Amino acid sequence: MAEPTDVQHKAGDAQPSPRLILDSINAYQRSAALKAAVTLDLFSAIAAGAATPGALAAASGGDARALRILCDYLAVVGFLVKADGIYGLTADSAHFLDRRSPAYIGAVVDFLGLPAHMACFADLADTIRHGGARPGASDQLSPSHPVWVDFARAMGAMRAQHAEALADRLRDEGRPDLRILDIACGHARYSIALARRHEHAEVMALDWPSVLAVAEENAAAAGIGRRFHLLPGDAGTTALGEGYDIVLLTHFLGMLGPAEIGRLLTRARAALAPGGRAVIVEYMPDEDRLSPPYAAMFALMMLGTTPRGDSHTVAEYEAALRQAGFSSWEAASLPPAEERILIARR
Amino acid sequence: MAEPTDVQHKAGDAQPSPRLILDSINAYQRSAALKAAVTLDLFSAIAAGAATPGALAAASGGDARALRILCDYLAVVGFLVKADGIYGLTADSAHFLDRRSPAYIGAVVDFLGLPAHMACFADLADTIRHGGARPGASDQLSPSHPVWVDFARAMGAMRAQHAEALADRLRDEGRPDLRILDIACGHARYSIALARRHEHAEVMALDWPSVLAVAEENAAAAGIGRRFHLLPGDAGTTALGEGYDIVLLTHFLGMLGPAEIGRLLTRARAALAPGGRAVIVEYMPDEDRLSPPYAAMFALMMLGTTPRGDSHTVAEYEAALRQAGFSSWEAASLPPAEERILIARR
Repeated sequence: MAEPTDVQHKAGDAQPSPRLILDSINAYQRSAALKAAVTLDLFSAIAAGAATPGALAAASGGDARALRILCDYLAVVGFLVKADGIYGLTADSAHFLDRRSPAYIGAVVDFLGLPAHMACFADLADTIRHGGARPGASDQLSPSHPVWVDFARAMGAMRAQHAEALADRLRDEGRPDLRILDIACGHARYSIALARRHEHAEVMALDWPSVLAVAEENAAAAGIGRRFHLLPGDAGTTALGEGYDIVLLTHFLGMLGPAEIGRLLTRARAALAPGGRAVIVEYMPDEDRLSPPYAAMFALMMLGTTPRGDSHTVAEYEAALRQAGFSSWEAASLPPAEERILIARR
Repeated sequence: MAEPTDVQHKAGDAQPSPRLILDSINAYQRSAALKAAVTLDLFSAIAAGAATPGALAAASGGDARALRILCDYLAVVGFLVKADGIYGLTADSAHFLDRRSPAYIGAVVDFLGLPAHMACFADLADTIRHGGARPGASDQLSPSHPVWVDFARAMGAMRAQHAEALADRLRDEGRPDLRILDIACGHARYSIALARRHEHAEVMALDWPSVLAVAEENAAAAGIGRRFHLLPGDAGTTALGEGYDIVLLTHFLGMLGPAEIGRLLTRARAALAPGGRAVIVEYMPDEDRLSPPYAAMFALMMLGTTPRGDSHTVAEYEAALRQAGFSSWEAASLPPAEERILIARR
């Protein structure tokens, strides 16, 4: 009879390793390191030629020894390259983290790294016992929370490319006068991109008043300010109106539970003109809920920050559309964006 | 002349991706998820057969929906496997995270995930401007901080295997009466392992009084209690005595800056009998400070939690040994442990 140690050896050469455990315990330091680098604007400094700890200290006001430690860490994790003590940016860091790049998303780092946001995960065991975020504790869904203004500003840049691609996809050549309702519009990049493609399109943008200020800025900057109308209020209760050609629900339904999604889709359908389209943009994992990885992991973000939010599957959204009275829809995705899209016709 | 987009396409097929940035911003959720799973003792529950969210809810008192989200996340990250909705442990999770396993290190997760520890990284940009942890802010080095008692208890189990392997390596068959000084001993696993191999060996264990209580427990449990002597105090100032055959400096020098290391090694050498050995166990990266990855990343841990600590390189430790008057030493490592070992002879 084989000894237990023999059995272990037969199972593979690999000895048990605590590496994944240690890496995961310390993973919060990776968030902290990226946030510190963005705060100190290190990526812009390196892009501008400050390539050693000493030069970075002069550029950022940080301590050279500490900057060397931070930059080495960022190199190990994959944000920087290093050769002969000289740091450089990776292609992705240059694209997204150099403040002079048009695709700069440092504000997203600031937003997602906000103490108010991270505090939602301070006692995740309690959240799991409770079944979701305690509304009073995180306060993430309250209209007045300034987090949503930050969110709208920060995420707008990151979503812009996807919004343009989706607008191309939804473009209706025969209809310059589309009526568009953008529910929980946030930065409103999706409706703005559509309005830019239909010269007589009118947008009704629904969100809390403080967030609409950001949307309005974006609309004005895009030159569609006069066709951009504000509907301040809560998506769950504000009257939506009717006769829309397109109702947009982008990056919002994941924050809700199935019952709220059902009610909102029913109201969205009623707001559509016959033949109009409801458009859902969301992270949606496969049936196994493990892939794609980011869509799957997004569920934990929703668990920590909302009472009933989730990474609902494609099949769950389809069931919700059916129950809301939609009879046909198509699924799409626009790589490299990881979101999935459901376009349902009334 | 090529358009900028052409140039970008020539640089490779890969489009710029914000994936690493988003994963890193949210990395703190990976720490939170592992900590919650250990707090709820999910790994033990799964090992005991609770393999669905419903069964886990019954076993842990958590909410089934929330547990499903947590377990899916843990499966994506690599702590669990999942097939047909049934969760199972990976080999590493079974070895280290099932409370019934002798190698259980859940206490390490608890320790490294302590709010006092994580708070050291709450404003890393400030730490970098300052050049290291502000002693008043983190208070990690104060003798009375209970974090060290937790640390000694938690890390003991994880270090035990390495301590045994090192004791085998250091074993001196001709000397049953070794005199051992264990500086900043913590759990004292290293000196205890040596004392068990030399029946007349005597250990002098130096650490703060609260930590020595843990070391003393471990020594008694190992049956060497009568040969285990306490030297309560601060490693930087307490008189070390003299005539030792072995002075242990394990997982301690990384918390210090070069000047303190120099002073301590000089004192350690003076405490050795002629021919005696000083033994350093530490994470030490290569000269590039990027590899091995964990040793390199450990520098950020030291930056956040200590005023002048670092992941000093092998060459830096060797220079410090030379300056302290040691003339010969050998380097070693005992895989799978990632620490490096320097054994210097007086």
